[in-house]
Amino acid sequence: MRLRNIPGAEEALREYPTFVDNPVRYKGRWKERFGNDHPIHIEIGCGKGRFINTLAERHPEINFIAIELKAEVVLRAAQRTEKRAIPNLAFVQFNAALLPDLFGAGEVSRIYLNFSDPWPKTRHAKRRLTYSSFLKTYQQVLVKNGEIHLKTDNEKLFEFSLNQFSDERFQLRHITFDLHHSPWAEDNVMTEYEERFSSRGQRIYRAEAICPS
Amino acid sequence: MRLRNIPGAEEALREYPTFVDNPVRYKGRWKERFGNDHPIHIEIGCGKGRFINTLAERHPEINFIAIELKAEVVLRAAQRTEKRAIPNLAFVQFNAALLPDLFGAGEVSRIYLNFSDPWPKTRHAKRRLTYSSFLKTYQQVLVKNGEIHLKTDNEKLFEFSLNQFSDERFQLRHITFDLHHSPWAEDNVMTEYEERFSSRGQRIYRAEAICPS
Repeated sequence: MRLRNIPGAEEALREYPTFVDNPVRYKGRWKERFGNDHPIHIEIGCGKGRFINTLAERHPEINFIAIELKAEVVLRAAQRTEKRAIPNLAFVQFNAALLPDLFGAGEVSRIYLNFSDPWPKTRHAKRRLTYSSFLKTYQQVLVKNGEIHLKTDNEKLFEFSLNQFSDERFQLRHITFDLHHSPWAEDNVMTEYEERFSSRGQRIYRAEAICPS
Repeated sequence: MRLRNIPGAEEALREYPTFVDNPVRYKGRWKERFGNDHPIHIEIGCGKGRFINTLAERHPEINFIAIELKAEVVLRAAQRTEKRAIPNLAFVQFNAALLPDLFGAGEVSRIYLNFSDPWPKTRHAKRRLTYSSFLKTYQQVLVKNGEIHLKTDNEKLFEFSLNQFSDERFQLRHITFDLHHSPWAEDNVMTEYEERFSSRGQRIYRAEAICPS
């Protein structure tokens, strides 16, 4: 998703109760932020925020945290919440490569990677969110048997990701090359990007990877 | 591959030194048949035999066994050998579902599944050679860390197979959605079927699955 730079985005964010300023203070104690010890599911790269907002509505028994690098993107996603406090949803502006600064070991139960940048050039492979170094980072914060749920319209990224997951000893499951015509279509929450792409007939790939214990 | 019934195929087979009659007598002692204890690689469903013949030529340090249910198919593949004895190649007519009657535990190092029948109807899923019951059968004869190498032009069979392998705790690796444009193209030995299909622009899927220990 490309967004024009929104002047003052960082300041504007502070008006949204779902936005968490200086989030590293909650490392290892996110349950204090949420006021309960429900499982934490995070989305890395939240786009316009429909996915995480919808999940938060549907699953009050889960705490959701959307992580985005760019203030402009976080702001757009947070704006969906219309300055309401949503008890089980938080937005943070943070670099996913530094996830262990944001969460303690085993603090995260599930990671969603939706339509991450495929970085198609080989020399950019390390930037892909399923590159082995990222998977090792995720392992540091995921609970035992924690899950990564991956969706993408990019076949090459999908193929790459399956190999990286396997190489890092993640257990794969529920692999589909055509999500919208699969058994997992019914429970699928579409992102804005996904809806636009699939309406053009583009297939969506999906897999789950279970963290090695 | 469809073949017309060849009358007398079973009798004709006995003229080929590569054909092994009554193969169950070698269960647990195939090294006696080959006269050495080299690793054993098998192909289940050998088609016209080019794949296994080529591998046998290239790898004298491996013993190859092609397993086919139909006498007519075994005959066609054996005919490639022109009644020569090839020390590291054997053809057997056998039902892959009964593999543990043919091999002792750990006697097989690698299994090749090339362009197996996709059995597209859901009610025929159990016939697919990567159905979980087959994978359990393979585990009974595979050595620790034994390998299954799968090639197919059928995307649905490939997707199904990745899931079955994962569910049975096989470790996947070297997954490619386009073998002929992948790092594994160079060492690839094409089957007759593969050559015909890929010349029409059809992509070939490939993966390796490592047997859980």
